[in-house]
Amino acid sequence: MERVFIGDLTLHTGKEVHIRGWVDVRRDHGKLIFLDIRDMSGKVQAVLLPSHEEAKVAVETFRSEWVVEIVGNVNKRPEKLVNANEKNGSLEIEITKATVINKAETTPIDVNSDGLQMSEEVRLKYRYLDLRRERMTRNMRVRSQVIKFFRDYLINKERFVEIETPILTKTTPEGARDFLVPARLSKGNFYALPQSPQQYKQLLMVAGFERYFQIARCFRDEDPRADRAYGEFTQLDMEMSFASQEEIMQLTEKMFTEMVESIFPEKHIMQKPWPRLTHKEAKEKFGTDKPDLRKNKEDQDELAFAWTVDFPLFTEQSEEDFFHGSGKSKFAPSHHMFTAPHPDDIGLLETDPTKVRGLQHDLVLNGYEVGGGSVRIHQSKIQEKVFDLIGFNDEQKKQFAHMLEAFTYGVPPHGGIAPGIDRLLMVILGEQSVREVIAFPMTGNGKASIMEAPSVATDEQLTELGIRTIEKNK
Amino acid sequence: MERVFIGDLTLHTGKEVHIRGWVDVRRDHGKLIFLDIRDMSGKVQAVLLPSHEEAKVAVETFRSEWVVEIVGNVNKRPEKLVNANEKNGSLEIEITKATVINKAETTPIDVNSDGLQMSEEVRLKYRYLDLRRERMTRNMRVRSQVIKFFRDYLINKERFVEIETPILTKTTPEGARDFLVPARLSKGNFYALPQSPQQYKQLLMVAGFERYFQIARCFRDEDPRADRAYGEFTQLDMEMSFASQEEIMQLTEKMFTEMVESIFPEKHIMQKPWPRLTHKEAKEKFGTDKPDLRKNKEDQDELAFAWTVDFPLFTEQSEEDFFHGSGKSKFAPSHHMFTAPHPDDIGLLETDPTKVRGLQHDLVLNGYEVGGGSVRIHQSKIQEKVFDLIGFNDEQKKQFAHMLEAFTYGVPPHGGIAPGIDRLLMVILGEQSVREVIAFPMTGNGKASIMEAPSVATDEQLTELGIRTIEKNK
Repeated sequence: MERVFIGDLTLHTGKEVHIRGWVDVRRDHGKLIFLDIRDMSGKVQAVLLPSHEEAKVAVETFRSEWVVEIVGNVNKRPEKLVNANEKNGSLEIEITKATVINKAETTPIDVNSDGLQMSEEVRLKYRYLDLRRERMTRNMRVRSQVIKFFRDYLINKERFVEIETPILTKTTPEGARDFLVPARLSKGNFYALPQSPQQYKQLLMVAGFERYFQIARCFRDEDPRADRAYGEFTQLDMEMSFASQEEIMQLTEKMFTEMVESIFPEKHIMQKPWPRLTHKEAKEKFGTDKPDLRKNKEDQDELAFAWTVDFPLFTEQSEEDFFHGSGKSKFAPSHHMFTAPHPDDIGLLETDPTKVRGLQHDLVLNGYEVGGGSVRIHQSKIQEKVFDLIGFNDEQKKQFAHMLEAFTYGVPPHGGIAPGIDRLLMVILGEQSVREVIAFPMTGNGKASIMEAPSVATDEQLTELGIRTIEKNK
Repeated sequence: MERVFIGDLTLHTGKEVHIRGWVDVRRDHGKLIFLDIRDMSGKVQAVLLPSHEEAKVAVETFRSEWVVEIVGNVNKRPEKLVNANEKNGSLEIEITKATVINKAETTPIDVNSDGLQMSEEVRLKYRYLDLRRERMTRNMRVRSQVIKFFRDYLINKERFVEIETPILTKTTPEGARDFLVPARLSKGNFYALPQSPQQYKQLLMVAGFERYFQIARCFRDEDPRADRAYGEFTQLDMEMSFASQEEIMQLTEKMFTEMVESIFPEKHIMQKPWPRLTHKEAKEKFGTDKPDLRKNKEDQDELAFAWTVDFPLFTEQSEEDFFHGSGKSKFAPSHHMFTAPHPDDIGLLETDPTKVRGLQHDLVLNGYEVGGGSVRIHQSKIQEKVFDLIGFNDEQKKQFAHMLEAFTYGVPPHGGIAPGIDRLLMVILGEQSVREVIAFPMTGNGKASIMEAPSVATDEQLTELGIRTIEKNK
């Protein structure tokens, strides 16, 4: 008999079925034993009547989280026992045969609560159990759905092509610290993990793909902060040729709106079309460039999307601008160094760079920045001017010589955006940390879930890579 | 006037349109000037009649690879000038207005040939131009389509969920050399890039997701070989709970067959259902475990899929088994250390391990292994026995203690497969190297496309990471 998914049981009412899954709970009610059985598709109540002697021997041994196989009849529950809140609340399985597939020790963490009161360290150590809780399972499934929605939308409706770009690459100028990878075949040298596929996506525009996207893994060695995951994050990386800033924003807005309406019908978007604020307005009115425009901040289902535009092209350079010189120069790019100046402000690049507006657009949701993008520079001359203003030395300029050269061979005007998947899901799902929407996040201070990483390497490995550690592992 | 994609021009016959793209070729025929214009969606011939004086001034300056904007009427070509081999071969655009969007220097590589005769070093240096050639553009677009097909199939038809697993993680026991990443927040320690998401996908089965997949980036620091790309590759990583080896193979076979029939209708699959060979048969009959079963090896459109099964669970350990001790122990896993022994052969683990068959299944296509998988061990005891046989010391066993522990909390029987996307596309597209189906591959000896990577790091960076280089960069 073929296995039936628990989520499909309503289609089998009155029939004998074979299900497999985990024992969620066992309840002994005198002569009756009830089991809640859970599989990837749902939950169902199974009942053992005293008459099924053989099954009873097995069921009496069952404990929570055991993996079991049940054969039984799908019966309608009597009217007064119907639980309208559950998908299978109007039926139950009358067990005729029960088998253990695999036993389980008592789990070290409770998987039936929402888990929010537990120590996160313990939750991450046992992430494979933590993910069993309903909330976490839902978060992972919703994440898969949202990403699928974006892919379908971009490929099926908007002619985008998805292209994978390298993870072992060169430093990317996003202003954060790089992760480095020692190169065994070229000792003394290092790859960098990409802070974003910025250069590659622009080069794909030079290559003529016109509409590229990728669900891209990005890496930044940033210092811990409570609500983020250390090390890596995922963004919906998009780039379009021949598109104005207006077109990029409209496509994004339409796609996000349809995504919310399709996957989260219970949510309401506060204002459509989304309000747009200039950076100046936002700062003056709300004291921030990512204002929370919700009317009722208690309402879990309110989503206040907004755009912030007309950012200054440059900010003051700070010590955190690793790439640009950690405060040694005057300006740092407000977004990144490929963002185009507003066409009306080109002259100001010479006379008063702080006044130049950039063609940057930030996507704001409930007070969080969930994406940023811009129209890019596509003229070598202006790109060189920006390099000068952010204080690039010759060595740094040389690192981007390939971009300047590429721009001489027929580059279309282009621009894009890169919404952050983790942050977006955190806000929509009402979670307090991006770690709640990532399957195996690192802790804030860089320890992996479950596994002991980072960890020591052998001397053999290090010698092969041409490196040594300075301090010994403590 | 809104821009029309060249691929949609047949819908606009008789109308005035506005197109944008690159000048593919310009041909001057006396009074007439012909331009082939190319965008992401296709190519079209545009003609300048002598009467359009104003457009002529612009068009006469146009060169190959310039980015231009054309306004003109979509006319039907006279019967005798129709080119039936081209999508837009029955029409041409009569240019009324022409504008330069961006000029182009003469490209350092020809982008109109198939590029196969050129130096690969030069092609990769100018990959953003190399990708403009029709063959490479097609390869990238087909890659996106194939991956989209798998995603749609697994999510829409087979209830899989896509889950992202970490890139900064712990060493994974696939038998190859790891890439290491120095950990700034834990000096002297290192992350490893995953050789595959093997452990994570098994832990997702423990978590109860039952059907997981991911288009996963994997990393192996393997020595150069002509037909592969160094460093990273992409696999369709899949895992299923409660599925027999038979079910895993059938799902894979059905999905691949439908993919080929849908995306490559010109190809014919030699035998359906795919032939299955035991490892022994394959070795005896063909001298290899990945036989090329095509009848006519000259036929570009013949695809001979096959399964190889009943591999020995262990092979002799060699120096290349970095993870298992580089030849210091007797056995290495034939597939990997989580592969389950054939249930009939469990006893032989004690008496004659070389005779134990593993529940491994290799997917073979035209003589290439394009995927491997297995049913996994889901009992801690057997897993420990395998650890002993492959010569794990206590330190190594400790590294997998979390797997043994996880298996005590209710793990379902599970297994999977991981077809390699790069190799699969190389074979189907008839390419000689996986580098022809990867947008920005590394050279065989580990140099990045376009960018100067790997490259030196600053002393500041290295100090922050707690490492030093042994040899100076040469």
